[in-house]
Amino acid sequence: MPPFLFAARGMELACYSHGLQSMVERGVSSQAKRMIHLGAFVHETGQHVAAWRHPEAHYQSGTSFSDMVEVARLAEGGKFDFLFLADTAAVNLEGSADARGRMGKVVKFEPMTILSALASVTTHLGLVATSTTTFNEPYTLARQFASLDQISGGRAAWNLVTSNNEQDALNYSRDEHMSHSDRYERAIEFAEVVNGLWDSWDEDAFIRDKDSGVFFDPSKMHVLNHKGKHFKVRGPLNVACSPQGRPVLVQAGASGTGRDVAARLAEVVFTAQTTFEQGKEFYSDVMSRLPRFGRTSDEVKVMPGFYPVVAPTASEAQEKYDYLQSLIQKPVGLSILEHTIGVHDLDKLPLDGPVPEMVDTNGPLSRQRLLLEQARRDNLTLWELCLANAGPRGHVLSIGTPSQVADEMEHWFTGGAADGFNVMPAWLPGSLADFVDLVIPELQRRGLFREEYEATTLRGNLGLPKPVNRHHEQRFMGAAQ
Amino acid sequence: MPPFLFAARGMELACYSHGLQSMVERGVSSQAKRMIHLGAFVHETGQHVAAWRHPEAHYQSGTSFSDMVEVARLAEGGKFDFLFLADTAAVNLEGSADARGRMGKVVKFEPMTILSALASVTTHLGLVATSTTTFNEPYTLARQFASLDQISGGRAAWNLVTSNNEQDALNYSRDEHMSHSDRYERAIEFAEVVNGLWDSWDEDAFIRDKDSGVFFDPSKMHVLNHKGKHFKVRGPLNVACSPQGRPVLVQAGASGTGRDVAARLAEVVFTAQTTFEQGKEFYSDVMSRLPRFGRTSDEVKVMPGFYPVVAPTASEAQEKYDYLQSLIQKPVGLSILEHTIGVHDLDKLPLDGPVPEMVDTNGPLSRQRLLLEQARRDNLTLWELCLANAGPRGHVLSIGTPSQVADEMEHWFTGGAADGFNVMPAWLPGSLADFVDLVIPELQRRGLFREEYEATTLRGNLGLPKPVNRHHEQRFMGAAQ
Repeated sequence: MPPFLFAARGMELACYSHGLQSMVERGVSSQAKRMIHLGAFVHETGQHVAAWRHPEAHYQSGTSFSDMVEVARLAEGGKFDFLFLADTAAVNLEGSADARGRMGKVVKFEPMTILSALASVTTHLGLVATSTTTFNEPYTLARQFASLDQISGGRAAWNLVTSNNEQDALNYSRDEHMSHSDRYERAIEFAEVVNGLWDSWDEDAFIRDKDSGVFFDPSKMHVLNHKGKHFKVRGPLNVACSPQGRPVLVQAGASGTGRDVAARLAEVVFTAQTTFEQGKEFYSDVMSRLPRFGRTSDEVKVMPGFYPVVAPTASEAQEKYDYLQSLIQKPVGLSILEHTIGVHDLDKLPLDGPVPEMVDTNGPLSRQRLLLEQARRDNLTLWELCLANAGPRGHVLSIGTPSQVADEMEHWFTGGAADGFNVMPAWLPGSLADFVDLVIPELQRRGLFREEYEATTLRGNLGLPKPVNRHHEQRFMGAAQ
Repeated sequence: MPPFLFAARGMELACYSHGLQSMVERGVSSQAKRMIHLGAFVHETGQHVAAWRHPEAHYQSGTSFSDMVEVARLAEGGKFDFLFLADTAAVNLEGSADARGRMGKVVKFEPMTILSALASVTTHLGLVATSTTTFNEPYTLARQFASLDQISGGRAAWNLVTSNNEQDALNYSRDEHMSHSDRYERAIEFAEVVNGLWDSWDEDAFIRDKDSGVFFDPSKMHVLNHKGKHFKVRGPLNVACSPQGRPVLVQAGASGTGRDVAARLAEVVFTAQTTFEQGKEFYSDVMSRLPRFGRTSDEVKVMPGFYPVVAPTASEAQEKYDYLQSLIQKPVGLSILEHTIGVHDLDKLPLDGPVPEMVDTNGPLSRQRLLLEQARRDNLTLWELCLANAGPRGHVLSIGTPSQVADEMEHWFTGGAADGFNVMPAWLPGSLADFVDLVIPELQRRGLFREEYEATTLRGNLGLPKPVNRHHEQRFMGAAQ
């Protein structure tokens, strides 16, 4: 049996027993009410492409630490499970210089450093950093996340991604990008190494007995000795056992291969689905893939991206959204559409004219077809299509009153499409403050969201089992046979 | 002319004019008194190998964030220029399991994450992270340091090292280590790329004009397009211009090649010299190498390691040191000697017997010869040699009263052997508190050390010029020609 499957099966048993034990310890019955989990997914100046132009937006985007402190404290005040930072490793140089200079997303803080700094000024908020398996080394990544977990007292999570951005590759001495299957193969081995390194030390390895002179028990240190196709890593890690057992693993599976990776590895699945039906299909599909990897649904939370625009009345909410849309500049809207569908020179066409047939494209055909269908169906002009594309950006857009937005969340949550949501505030800090002030109290009134944090670790707040060190599983399995 | 030399010469001119300007701005005459600079060089539990066994030592070493907060606040309270974290990327698996289990240095926080976390709880203290050019990628490293510089408001420094530890290589998919010359060649190109990436954005590139819709001025973004032997990096960096222009660059040059790298790149030179004469030779030698790289002595601070053991009376200080030495365990002292001189099986010899001839060795012969000479000269037993080796560990050991310790520092500082010191507290937090309480007031009384921080940036406190973006130098040089 390959070591990975062995570990996975062991984990299932161990986690199950641990899960029961935790519930008994906390005095929680096995019928405890299922609750929505929330992540605050924050971009530089907000999710909306014109966020920085909002009159009340003042964030500097990657140069003002106090901006990020405000966001983290807002999220923690709202009892969010975690703050989630996306990442890219390049400045986008596509399109014209003029269009690029008009976009607000260009520089930002690097996730590991900013989340470590935010760990000092928060106490319960989980800290999710995106980090790629394509250009990193597993020993460095494992160290940094384990260290963040120690610093934060058990609040770190790793959003595992592979990099498919050609421009990132150019910053890492690669002329061309790895193929899709190579990237995923490397990612799976990478995660195996990282998880193995996180199991280097037993929780009670460090005795620190001054009298006997024993600092650690050598039998509680585990040397990995990984030798695979992509990596050779001896170990052990020079960071002690993580307060969470291991940092939480987040992954965004989309394609079939991506969904398999999610089912194999992810504890939180971040996904982009625009309709309830799509969300439900995705949820069922990921859950159905779990048994193949020896895992159960208790070990995985599916959390789609969710883009709320909320106001006391429905018309005010719509006005808020329309106003943001009105701030999108022509070169920016066109450039984003060109990028989405892989077509150039759209700026040579009349914006108030019809959407042209776009056949000569190297871009993603399915996305192009969906947009073209939408344009034909709704009889959109080229500029209207730009706006429709630049607005929701592939996530659930929910515009309405607190009650309407909460209805949509409840529908997804109770209808089998989500365990929670990655909330994407349109502009910062205003849209995050709106959600905290208006939607969270409504969810709490409905008994769908916590009033207080349940735990001090992210794993504890998400209700995820603490993994058992693989070296203990193997002993356990050995004894059971 | 190769681009590097061009940039270095340009920098000299630009920095000189900036230096003058800064002094005028601050109202400081060019005759301002030269002051000692201090770094707090902290290991996991302290510099002494038995630090963790001290009865008052309580630090957890890499699992308690509050320990590190205490150290940082002690250093900042003492007006240290910076906190300096060494680094390795492996757990040492040499020697017996028993000996390893008795050493206190095995796990720790990872430097970038812990220093980012400490940035939140300090206001003036510089933050020096060690990071290797051997196993990292320049784009990632440039991002993390620039981000730390943004978070801390201009207090980041990079201690550039190459990795010669065979065990580190085994954690990075390498079977054998790069040669000395390959490592340095890669290091120089690595630093060139990192410095280039740090010049990606002009200070005033981000306009953020909501009315005109211009977020940044495209003419103030610079694409690196580096293509070298070891790296191809397009750029630009996705972090804005550092508050310090660039994070401060620290390097420890020892060999001839190392000293050239220091003279070429370093703004702070960290060095290990045990006697004043060695220190003075090193200082003069590094300074004499600067003109070849178009640099002047104003741009470089030489700061040797300095290991103080201080108490109100000289006999108390000696007792403190002897007590720490008495805590060194036999297997640990032997293991460190074996490691230092590259000989095995010393534990088969009588500890109170003479030091054997050690001919069959693969270790560093010069170090072995120095130790053997010392053993013969002072007629040491094997265990006495172990203690002599494990104690100062290659740095200036200064045991005495505050006045005696300050005398030694003043001698080095005024005698042309140092611009300051990297103070290595024997155990934490006690030895750092001793230095702050006893030695710093003595240095201040003598007018050799600041009473208050001069600036909020590390560069400002060190009195180092703020580098001018290379793209401005070239324009300047072009105009001057």
